Amino acid sequence: MCEANAYILKEDKEELLMERVDRVVPQNGEIYLESIWGQRKTIAGRIKELNLVDHRIVLELAPEEKTASL
Amino acid sequence: MCEANAYILKEDKEELLMERVDRVVPQNGEIYLESIWGQRKTIAGRIKELNLVDHRIVLELAPEEKTASL
Repeated sequence: MCEANAYILKEDKEELLMERVDRVVPQNGEIYLESIWGQRKTIAGRIKELNLVDHRIVLELAPEEKTASL
Repeated sequence: MCEANAYILKEDKEELLMERVDRVVPQNGEIYLESIWGQRKTIAGRIKELNLVDHRIVLELAPEEKTASL
């Protein structure tokens, strides 16, 4: 299976947000994520980088969300 | 290997843009793509959707690019 793990970049550190993500849909400044198990999350942010061979999705919070806890 | 193919959505049809994409980096309204063979492309557009289990990256051109040929 070729899903990836999604990480949030926080103060230059990556925090695991969701494992085994299948679908990623950016929309209106938000990112909708869905895992192979049907887990769903939406965060206010953007995709910083994908490394598919390494199974990594790196997300960045929207500026106004950076100080909020997830 | 878990790279994906990148498609451009054009008039509701998907056109293959690059095969076996490893890295995807959105930046300043552009998307930088790099394949496992080191092929590189940058397009003015955005990520519409990722389906990693299906190895699919769907991109949309920026509105002002939609009538230009690739």
